[in-house]
Formats: sequence, C-alpha cells, structure tokens
Amino acid sequence: MLLSRNRRRIHLNAFDMACVGHQSPGLWRHPDDQAHRYTDLAYWTDLARLLDRGGFDSLFIADVLGVYDVYQGSRDAAVRQGAQIPLSDPLPAVSAMAAVTERLGFGITVSLTYEQPYKLARTLTTLDHLTKGRIAWNVVTSYLESAARNLGLGEQVAHDDRYEVAEEFLEVCYKLWEYSWDDDAVVRDRERGIYTDPGRIRDIAHKGRHFTVPGVFLSEPSPQRTPVIFQAGASPRGRAFAARHGEGVFINAVSPQATRRVVDDIRAKAAAEGRDPYSVKIFILLTAITAPTDEEARAKYDDLISYASYEGALALYGGWSGLDLSELAPDQPLEYVDTDAVRSALAIFSTADPTRRWTPDQVARYLGIGGIGPVVVGSPATVADELERWVEEADIDGFNLAYATTPGTFADFVDLVVPELRSRGRIPAPSGGATLRERLHGAAGGPRVREDHPAARHRELAIRERESAGTHQLS
Amino acid sequence: MLLSRNRRRIHLNAFDMACVGHQSPGLWRHPDDQAHRYTDLAYWTDLARLLDRGGFDSLFIADVLGVYDVYQGSRDAAVRQGAQIPLSDPLPAVSAMAAVTERLGFGITVSLTYEQPYKLARTLTTLDHLTKGRIAWNVVTSYLESAARNLGLGEQVAHDDRYEVAEEFLEVCYKLWEYSWDDDAVVRDRERGIYTDPGRIRDIAHKGRHFTVPGVFLSEPSPQRTPVIFQAGASPRGRAFAARHGEGVFINAVSPQATRRVVDDIRAKAAAEGRDPYSVKIFILLTAITAPTDEEARAKYDDLISYASYEGALALYGGWSGLDLSELAPDQPLEYVDTDAVRSALAIFSTADPTRRWTPDQVARYLGIGGIGPVVVGSPATVADELERWVEEADIDGFNLAYATTPGTFADFVDLVVPELRSRGRIPAPSGGATLRERLHGAAGGPRVREDHPAARHRELAIRERESAGTHQLS
Repeated sequence: MLLSRNRRRIHLNAFDMACVGHQSPGLWRHPDDQAHRYTDLAYWTDLARLLDRGGFDSLFIADVLGVYDVYQGSRDAAVRQGAQIPLSDPLPAVSAMAAVTERLGFGITVSLTYEQPYKLARTLTTLDHLTKGRIAWNVVTSYLESAARNLGLGEQVAHDDRYEVAEEFLEVCYKLWEYSWDDDAVVRDRERGIYTDPGRIRDIAHKGRHFTVPGVFLSEPSPQRTPVIFQAGASPRGRAFAARHGEGVFINAVSPQATRRVVDDIRAKAAAEGRDPYSVKIFILLTAITAPTDEEARAKYDDLISYASYEGALALYGGWSGLDLSELAPDQPLEYVDTDAVRSALAIFSTADPTRRWTPDQVARYLGIGGIGPVVVGSPATVADELERWVEEADIDGFNLAYATTPGTFADFVDLVVPELRSRGRIPAPSGGATLRERLHGAAGGPRVREDHPAARHRELAIRERESAGTHQLS
Repeated sequence: MLLSRNRRRIHLNAFDMACVGHQSPGLWRHPDDQAHRYTDLAYWTDLARLLDRGGFDSLFIADVLGVYDVYQGSRDAAVRQGAQIPLSDPLPAVSAMAAVTERLGFGITVSLTYEQPYKLARTLTTLDHLTKGRIAWNVVTSYLESAARNLGLGEQVAHDDRYEVAEEFLEVCYKLWEYSWDDDAVVRDRERGIYTDPGRIRDIAHKGRHFTVPGVFLSEPSPQRTPVIFQAGASPRGRAFAARHGEGVFINAVSPQATRRVVDDIRAKAAAEGRDPYSVKIFILLTAITAPTDEEARAKYDDLISYASYEGALALYGGWSGLDLSELAPDQPLEYVDTDAVRSALAIFSTADPTRRWTPDQVARYLGIGGIGPVVVGSPATVADELERWVEEADIDGFNLAYATTPGTFADFVDLVVPELRSRGRIPAPSGGATLRERLHGAAGGPRVREDHPAARHRELAIRERESAGTHQLS
C-alpha cells in the first residue's frame, strides 16, 4: 500500500463560490481582486480556461441558501463584508465553462434538502451530457437556519435525520441513473421508426419513507450516468455518509497528524462498506500564497492579510459554528464551555494549537484568508514540499484550493506551483478517458461508477432483470 | 391605435425543447434532422448563433416533467417515437448559448409547481446576470399527472387552485426581485470596507397561504430584475393570469378570426388590470416550411409530412387533452361527447374546420408537423404574406416558430424568410438596449418592468420606504 502511495498523483480542485467573499471576506478590497465579477460570464469562462490549462481536475463551486446572521445576531456584518452575500446560483454558469474547456470537471453544490430527486437527477444528467461526463455533485444537506426559514420547511423536516433523507434521496437518484434505462435503450432505428425501445427502459417503483417515485427516468443515460459524488463535512454521521457514497471527500484540516486520524477513519469505514478505501479521494481545504521566492511570497501574504476583515471572518464563523463571538472582546480568551456544541465548534482551534487560549482576534486572523484551512506561503518549491508532506503524512489525495484574491491566487498557483508539481511527477499529463470519474480513478475503470460503489448495485439489478427476461426482442 | 399597428414589427421566437420529438414526432427519422444532438452542447450553441444572426428575439425552450402516457394507456408510443422523451432540463445549456450570442433572449420554461420561490428567484436572477438581461421565464403550472406522481405531490396540492398558487409564487418573486435590494445597495466602497450597505436591503416579510418567506433576497439586482414574464395557455384562468402578468403570451391558433377573439379578450383583460393592452406581446405557434419557390416548398412539405408519426402525434395529443384516441379506428369520426373536458379537448379541431367530422387519422396528420399550430408552406414572399396577414387580422405581435426538422426549419427561415421580412420593415435592425425586455418593449422603457406591470408596485414600495426613512446614511 505504501508503494502505491509514493509519488502518487496529487489531485487539484479550485474552490470558488458565486459571490465576492467566499473564504477570505474583506479581500474584495484588494486592488487585484476580481471576485466582484462573479455576475459576469467572462469571469467564469476565463477562470475555467486557466484551471484547464493548469491541470486542475475540477472547479468546485460551493453554495448556501441563506445568510450568515449569527454574529451580532444580525446579517449586517456579512452584508457589509460581502461574506457569501450577494450570492448567485452555482449551476447556470457551468455549460459556458464546459464549452471553452476540454477536461476540467465541475463539482456543483446542491442541497438536497430543497429538491425532489426526480427533478434534480434530470438536471445533473443534463449537465453530464452537455459536459460529456465532467460533472460531480457535491451532496449537501442544509446547515443555515436562515435558509430553512425562507424555503418553507415545516417542523417535521427539522426533526428528521437529514442524513437519513439524504440516503433515500441518493437511492432514488441511483435507481433513475443506473437502473431505469439500459445502455442500448436508445436505438434510433430510422427504418423501423423506433427511437427508444420501450422494453429497455423500466419504472423504478420507489416507495420509501420520504419519497415516492413510481416512474421511469425522463433522460437517457449520460456518459457517467451517476455524476461523481462529492461530499464535504466531517461530522461522525457525515463521515459515514462519505465512506458509503463519496468518491471525492472534502475535509477541513489543521495538521497532518490530526487529519491522518480522520482520513484513516474514513478509509476504514469505506472498507467496512466493501469499498476500496483508496477509491475515496480525500481532499483538504488549503490556500497557497506563492511567488518566485519565499521572501516575495511572505511579502505577498503580509499584503493580503492586511485586507482581511475581522467582522467578515467572525460572520462566517458564526454561520459555520453557531457561536456568536461578538459576545467577547477581541482579546478576550474563549471559554471552553463544556457543551457538545461548543466543543465541536471550537475543536478546530484547540487542534490547531491546544496550548493557546484563542481570542476572537486570533480566530479572525486564522480564518481571515482561506477560512478554516491551512495557508501555505512560499516559493513554488516550498509550497510543493508542503503539499507533498500533507499527502504523505495525512494520506490524502489532493487539495481543495481556496483563493485569497481571484483569479490571482489561482493564476499564481497555475503559473508557479503546477510546473513544480509536474516536474515532480505529481500531476501527470492527461491521458485516456476524458470524464471526471476516469480522471479521479484512472481510465481503466471507465466513466461509470466502480463495482464497489453503492450505485453499482442498481446497475447490476437492471442487467439481471434484462437477462432473466431472456433474449429481448425489439418491441 | 390602428396606425401604430400598421407595419408593426414582427417578433420572432424559436420554439425548441431539449428532446428529439418536440412538436413533430417522427421527423427524427428524416435524414436532415439533427434533433438527436440535443445532448450535445454544440447543437445549442450552433442554434443560438443561427437565431441571433437571423434576428430572432428569443429561443423559447419548452419543458415537461412527465411522460405522455394517455394514448393506449401507456407511455410506449411516446417512447418509441421520441415524443418528448428522452428529455433534458432546458436550463443548463443557456449560459453556453449566451456566451456565443449578443442579443438573443432565452425563454426558459420552469413549472412553479415543483419549486420554492426563494430558490427559483435566485436561479433566474443568476441567469439574468450571466446573459446581461436576456432571460424570460415561461411560467407554467404542471399538466401531466405522470409528473405529479413522481414529484411527491400530496392530495392537498392537487386540490389547490394551481393559478392561486402561481399568483402568490409570483408575488414572492416580485418582492425578492423588485423590493428587497435598492439599485444602489452594492456600494463596493473599498476605503470604508462596505461591499453592500445593510440599510439598502430589506426583508420581504412575506407570509401568505402557500409560502412563508421572511428574509432578504440572496442576490443583487440583475439587469432586468424581474425576468420577462412569458405565459402559455389559453384556458379562461390562464388568460386572466396572462393578462395580469404576461409580457409575452403564447397561444395556439387555427384561424386568424378565432385567434382575434382570444387576442381581443386578453388585451381587454390586460386593460382592465390597468395595463397598456399592447404591452402584452402575443405570439401564436406556427411552423413555416419554405424554399425559394412555392413549388419547392410544397415538395419539401410533402417529403417532411411523410415522416410524421401517427402514434407519436396521438401520444402528444393524449397528454395535452387527456383523450385517448386509440379507442377509435383511424378512420372513425370523433364523437363530440357533450362534457366540458371533451369539448375543450376537441375545440381546436372544430374551430379548424367545424364542418368536418374529424377522424384520428386527420387529427394525427394535422398535428404531425408543428403540433396544434398552423403550418405555412411557400416561398419567402408567400410565407411573409401569410405572417403579415396573421399579424393584421389576428392583431398578434409575432410567432413562436416550431420546427419540422432542426436546425433545418430554422435555417430555412433565417436564410429565406427573414431577409424578406427585413425588406418589408417587419424586422428592424437592432438598436438601443440589449436586454430582452427592451427588445420587446423598445429601448425607451429601459430594462425594468413597465410601470403598469404588477411587479412595479413592489419597486415603488421600496422607493417609498427608502424616501420615508429620510436621507439615508451609509451604515
């Protein structure tokens, strides 16, 4: 196992969001930052071209459906700092980016909490068709109460186990994607006048606790059928879900050692589900500030961090954690109140430095660039060394790279760090299949889900039913 | 009023759907037809370029969320003929088309029955940003029961008045689009570190019978704010809805005289709502088969109709009307059973020819190309004459042009009929504002909804509240 991990490929995602202050609120004030162009299609097509050229596997577009209103009990800080508001829908720009790129994948965040599987499955299949198999779905359940309030969720949904709903939602999608249409269902037989053979499509007949979907899928199979399944979030329940369904799993990390424990746990859980533990590609959030020399990179970092916003960082942290740090003075050490919620919300900081009694000032500075992820500052060689160290020590597969300024942070990485990683054999030249799944798992496995993924069960069921029906006559 | 209508501009929409058999099922067998390329982004970008060059105002993309399973009590005929199945989501291809066009609008069909206004409003605003104001929303409520079964609709929704839900849905959207953010809310003040002024955005505080949306809109205002509102459907309730909200209204028509009565009714109802009756642009579904001469056009039509599918046409008709014509022999005249449902379902045919006792054969042939709309066959001059006759006699504003083959039917129209219409002054050279609303209403009114549109009330309310708060200080 160790051998296979030596010099292993490093996978790269760019982490963006259709807003001005994604992980580094306040940086929109930096003269180089172009984040305010998020409403302009050219921002997205330029970014996609850059990432495609730079060997990135995919662009991961985050999303929320609410505002950050925990800090000071108000949304005002988030609004002033552009902290994920104003915010656009991540999905509509994808096809324009696909049209100008050859290989870049697109990881789109859609919360299933406000969707019906019958409809969302068709949207994702459509995107997978239009991109020729370059779509990943980042499966999330909502976390902002401000979203639930505006999207008509009644009490009963709040009390439901969100991951139980997610399990069933995915099961319905897998049936639509893998079971409903045979590979050869579309025959396009002009002579006999048969576009699709009715005997080669089937009702999914799903009747579960949360969803009833009796019918046939509306769309024909796309290159990947099931889009690559991304999952983000490292709660115990989230990890179990990731180990079961995740093909790309995104975790927050502060040290390789602590991350290694989470990674080992996810891989062990995946193995317990009967999956190859290395079929789960694990990414950490990280921001790289680079320049030709370490000194120049440090100067760049010092310049960037001077634009970070105290209230913007604590506004985001309030939404992520549920804790309102405005109740403390900036230099007042946090109390580690012994409740589950507070322990969980502060865990990242005690892990980062267990000896320090963190103050809101220190938290804000820590989060100011790149959010909860580590910030690596240095020359291309320094950054590449540090990325390799993370990969080896934490046993991860790649990075979800946030920006300080956009596209500047990404352009620096493409122009400086990517050549270094290529020369080290960490980013191979593209070869073989062009779908995102082939890029993550290798072309040998083809564009469809692996045999050991839970979606494959529904594909196998369709094959068995087809076989047991005998040699099928074109009806 | 008559003067203003003389030589008035003719507005053109292309009518397509992300499937192979939209209005002319069976024609996918024609050697020229490219409809099966609907899963390929290049099909859409090529089509968009063609229409943009050809002076079309917009591409109207239809949608359903179910299958046509009334005919023979089964979906099999629709499946065999590719009659709106397989089917993709109309929305994802739009940004790629916008990236390669300058002025073409995009009318996207989204059924509000399966959406939450808080989420859909953001999606449409995002598209309006990315297209720089070229989006129309075709507001539909679902009509296929096969959709409702798969999308988890309980009994209570079935019993609700769909148009009552639609009214409130639009009211919520208007509040989000027109009321929640001031034009100058985004200040992007780098010195003071204020991206958006919290005092210039406001909660919509909507609490209605069907939706509760207390919060602020997530997105900043797009060029048109409210997308151009399209509406299709000519039931009495649908007409009232169109007269109140519609800026582009799409109706089926068989004769200019009968259509004139519907048009007069819609314009009278719009006037009763306090709107300029000519601010409602009314389009009829129509298919034009053209060639350099009338003779060649007739030969082209004869060739095309030979590919039309009997069962495909009756499969679509079953879904539209709820009537299963498989119960009759192909040459057996329809019984005009005296129930409201049957009268309504057959009305189009009795209008088309009240003296004829229609048989399923005749119905299928009538619908075989271009669905319920008339088919005009002839040279560019003949077609232009006929379009002008419709405009004058029916007092309509333009056409929703269906295809027999795609892009062939559209390419013929652009290459042959558009130059003829341009030479007659019916399609002016582009000038002024580039948004779809300015294209429909003229640049003078700007990109936002007209004063007499119900959405404008919410804009005015925001202005009044801002004024009554006195000179607002940047907070």
